[in-house]
Formats: sequence, structure tokens, C-alpha cells
Amino acid sequence: MITVLRLDHRLGRDTRITTHVCLTARAFGADKVILSGEHDKHIIESAQKVVENWGGDFEVEYQKAYRPVIKEHKQKGFEIIHLTMYGKHVEDVVPTIRDNNRDKLIIVGGSRVPTDVYEAADWNLSVTNQPHSEVAALAICLHYMMDGSELKTVYDDGKMQIVPNNEHKEVIKNE
Amino acid sequence: MITVLRLDHRLGRDTRITTHVCLTARAFGADKVILSGEHDKHIIESAQKVVENWGGDFEVEYQKAYRPVIKEHKQKGFEIIHLTMYGKHVEDVVPTIRDNNRDKLIIVGGSRVPTDVYEAADWNLSVTNQPHSEVAALAICLHYMMDGSELKTVYDDGKMQIVPNNEHKEVIKNE
Repeated sequence: MITVLRLDHRLGRDTRITTHVCLTARAFGADKVILSGEHDKHIIESAQKVVENWGGDFEVEYQKAYRPVIKEHKQKGFEIIHLTMYGKHVEDVVPTIRDNNRDKLIIVGGSRVPTDVYEAADWNLSVTNQPHSEVAALAICLHYMMDGSELKTVYDDGKMQIVPNNEHKEVIKNE
Repeated sequence: MITVLRLDHRLGRDTRITTHVCLTARAFGADKVILSGEHDKHIIESAQKVVENWGGDFEVEYQKAYRPVIKEHKQKGFEIIHLTMYGKHVEDVVPTIRDNNRDKLIIVGGSRVPTDVYEAADWNLSVTNQPHSEVAALAICLHYMMDGSELKTVYDDGKMQIVPNNEHKEVIKNE
């Protein structure tokens, strides 16, 4: 099981980025996102709508404080991965832990991440050591975690499916 | 040369996502982003600041209308790649065109992309056929374009550099 924990979501200011975090988590094979920080009904609903339309089992839930979430997942045996531009390289570490049969909690930071998150993590991992985007970092981390298999995932339990096409849009409705 | 063209940027509403597009473009090996739509001084300045601090040759420029940009790049021989959830799979196509010595223009859509963009593109490419994020799509597309080499890029002409570390932040200042 792969769960993504979004730290300290701020209503309004973070809404679009956090929505992208959630949809990227789903499209790249995570099972769940836990949002901490401010409650944002809109994001949870829009993720539900995407699942309804496009399929799969993904869910977004809300828990105000993130520290109990990390603690609880540690106790359950999840491997804790914190994505940060200061960390070791994802591509060096993820292939070595991918198949160790432990569930993963991937922590995606907010604006300033306090030291105790670095300390609680089994792995502080970076995607390049350059400043860019938590959305891009999550995508690449999950891409390594899934060993690329996420790119070909097809959900046939949604309302519709895309037929990949080089010229134009082609969508089929599922019966 | 890899240039990214962002369609129809909207001031305010798109500022953070477009900033993430720019920083992701830089961190994943693109040379330039051209922003079309509304002029956004803030994004151009913040990209310049990142280059100053972290190095490299990346730049962001502004051109209000995107159609002339596409036309001009076609005339210059750039291969035009439009990222869309409806396209053929990036991982099937990019490895076959990566080393053909043609410059690339990667188009990253706005809210609704008109048909003529699909038609102008040599390639309409998708990263999964699921709805997610133009930031994630750009990261994965460039990751395939650079064959993963972008993850290890080090710039020594910035003011500082990160030393990858599993426990804490470690930054060295360049002399």
C-alpha cells in the first residue's frame, strides 16, 4: 500500500497545487492521500469525482494534524519517505526498497518542514537537488516506486476511458 | 535545445502552477520556457532568482500569443510535442525521437486546448491517460527525454549547492 501525506495544506493558496498532488498520486499508483492542515472539501470532492469518472480505488481523506498520522503509520510498519530537495537521490534508493514488502508513507512537504519530520522519516529523498515542485517530485518518486508500470495502468471501472491517439481526442464510454 | 511553451497563462489563478512548470522545466533539463497568455513579471523574476542562486543557463521569456511561437519553431525545424492526456504514450515515443538531433518544443496546455494545437504538433503525447497535472506530465516527459541524466545534474555556477543527505539539510556555498 502506498499512502501520500500532504503536510499543512492551506485553503485557497494551496488548493490547485494540492489538487495536482492528489491527482498525480492517483495516476501514478498511490492508494490514498491524507491531507493535513486546513480542511478543503473541494479537493476531496474533486478527487472523488475523478475516481467516479475514470475508475480505480483511490481515496483522499483529511486529518488536521500530521504528526499523529506519521506516528500511527510508523507503528503499523509503514516505511516513511519524506520528499525534500535536500535528500538522497530517489533513483538511488527507491529501487532498493521497492520490493521489500513494506507499505510506504510518502510525505509531501508544505512551505517549511520542521526538523522532526526529517527525523521521523526512514528516508529523506530528493528528485534532483534543485528547487522545483512537489508535484514533479511525487510523480518521479512514484514512477520509480512502480517501476514505470503506472504509465500503462488501465481502469475499466470508470465511466470512460481514453484511447491513446496521436491526432485527436478519442474517448470510449464504459458500458 | 528543449524549449517549453506554456499556453494561455492566467495571472493569479495560474501563477503557482506555472511557476512549478518553469522550475520543473529547469530542473529536468529544458533550456527555456516561453510563457504565453497574461504577462506575469513575478514568474519571470522568480525563475531568474532561482538561476542566480542555483546555477545553469535556463531562461523564461514572454510572448503574448502562442500560435506565432509554434509556427516560428516549426519553421526553425523544432519537433513539436504537445502534452495532453489524450495522446500516445510518452514512454513509447520519446525514446524513439530522443536522439534524432532535432530541437524540441514541448507544449504544456492551459485549461482548454484548441484543435489547431493538436494539428500543429508532430506528437500529441500523454503521461498515463488519466487526468492529473501538467507539472507531473512535463517532469516525466523530460525525464524520458533526458534519459534520466537530469537527476544527477550538478550546477557549480550558482551561489550554492546541496549535498544529498538522508538525515538533514546540507548546503555548501560556491566560492
